Amino acid sequence: MARHNNRHYAIGVFDSGLGGLTVVKELVRLLPHEDIVYFGDTARVPYGTKSKESIIRFSKENVGLLLKHKVKMIVLACNTSSSLALDVLKRTYGIPLIGVINPGAQKAVLVTKNKRIGVVATSATIYSQAYPKRIRELDRSIKVIAQACPLFVPLAEEGWFNKKVTEDIARTYLKNMIKNRIDALILGCTHYPLLKPVLRKVMGKKVFLVDSAEVVANEVKKRLVREDKLNPTHKKGYYKFLVSDRPQHFQELAKRFLGFDIKNVLRV
Amino acid sequence: MARHNNRHYAIGVFDSGLGGLTVVKELVRLLPHEDIVYFGDTARVPYGTKSKESIIRFSKENVGLLLKHKVKMIVLACNTSSSLALDVLKRTYGIPLIGVINPGAQKAVLVTKNKRIGVVATSATIYSQAYPKRIRELDRSIKVIAQACPLFVPLAEEGWFNKKVTEDIARTYLKNMIKNRIDALILGCTHYPLLKPVLRKVMGKKVFLVDSAEVVANEVKKRLVREDKLNPTHKKGYYKFLVSDRPQHFQELAKRFLGFDIKNVLRV
Repeated sequence: MARHNNRHYAIGVFDSGLGGLTVVKELVRLLPHEDIVYFGDTARVPYGTKSKESIIRFSKENVGLLLKHKVKMIVLACNTSSSLALDVLKRTYGIPLIGVINPGAQKAVLVTKNKRIGVVATSATIYSQAYPKRIRELDRSIKVIAQACPLFVPLAEEGWFNKKVTEDIARTYLKNMIKNRIDALILGCTHYPLLKPVLRKVMGKKVFLVDSAEVVANEVKKRLVREDKLNPTHKKGYYKFLVSDRPQHFQELAKRFLGFDIKNVLRV
Repeated sequence: MARHNNRHYAIGVFDSGLGGLTVVKELVRLLPHEDIVYFGDTARVPYGTKSKESIIRFSKENVGLLLKHKVKMIVLACNTSSSLALDVLKRTYGIPLIGVINPGAQKAVLVTKNKRIGVVATSATIYSQAYPKRIRELDRSIKVIAQACPLFVPLAEEGWFNKKVTEDIARTYLKNMIKNRIDALILGCTHYPLLKPVLRKVMGKKVFLVDSAEVVANEVKKRLVREDKLNPTHKKGYYKFLVSDRPQHFQELAKRFLGFDIKNVLRV
């Protein structure tokens, strides 16, 4: 049963910063008995404006770090890393690696009726074309409308969820989506679930919002079940948070993303 | 005359990214015969959200890099570095180092009549209290109102100078400044000169806008004159641009900051 000897290991999760905590929140909800080791690369955040070579180098270093912490699977809770580094990482490491692109693309293809899907994300994710490429692999007849939204991350971090300017900015970015009558919108950045209420308001109730955090957590569960790697314990999971810069800022903002307070954020 | 043998050397300038190009623009205008070597740490941008230890480490590495390029003076064209690292750098290196805080604070103290000065900057610069501290050293009776404006940098990089949302966001951030009837506003981030028209509109014509880029260029000129280090050539200066991430993005956006196109951006 050697292949099962790491069931008690944690799920490793990394992101460029805080955003991946929306994924942790969903993992905690869906898999309450799993331990989680999270690494936020807060010294080099954001990844969304940087080059492919830099993203690959940073992502390799992040995987290397998590591998030192007894993990059985690693989640790239970062759209930019998932777009630009997942394939290289899969060729380099033996551990199961899950990115956010494929689960998001699959969900959108599943829910769209009129075959018009929108994608909002950081500049780097949009520039990489990762979502349109994957969606067209799944169904060539689907039209994809993509839009980089560089102001969404700072708006989410400011906590300006109900401000009129946030709605105005969302209307500016989403104008083309509305004009093209999309019926599914992929929130292609882990910060964006925080802006769901305003995006729902701007897009209307008929547009399905595909939340990366939710779909990737579902994918993790499916994969753990399939590979018989679910943690057999009945105890509540243990969560460890690692960052590459000052833990204080991370700790302060974490509640907004996670829904609960955290302690013991370690700088590595 | 050994102390003069580096007159022909360049002025070194570094910033976390693109913003310092507003300083280069002013240097080019004021000192057309000087050579300039600029380093933008685009792989680690922004500095404004990171810890003091990280900023000091990054800044030392940046100075080390510029010292390999025959420079006679180094300008920290980054408010965050100037706030958190200048003192340490001065103790570590023999070369003249000029930050943006002191020139900005001096100018504001000079122009204020009602002794109420406002400062807008990144979170790290505001948190460091660098401007209020320096202003109070110059004149203890001055009241300083400080405000972090995390959305200004992405707004400037989006090029949304004339959009209504930009004005709305500026009104939100500056509300307290207006209420406190400041008569001088320090633009404490090298990106902010791009937002001058909207800041002027929101604050009104009676408030003096202290532009870091202008005041630091004046300080560089004064210092070069005082130390007899002006380049004696009559040729136009030569400009070299170094970055730590993909040159393409930097090159594309540079014109917005500099007012002229650049080529030969090198990745180091």
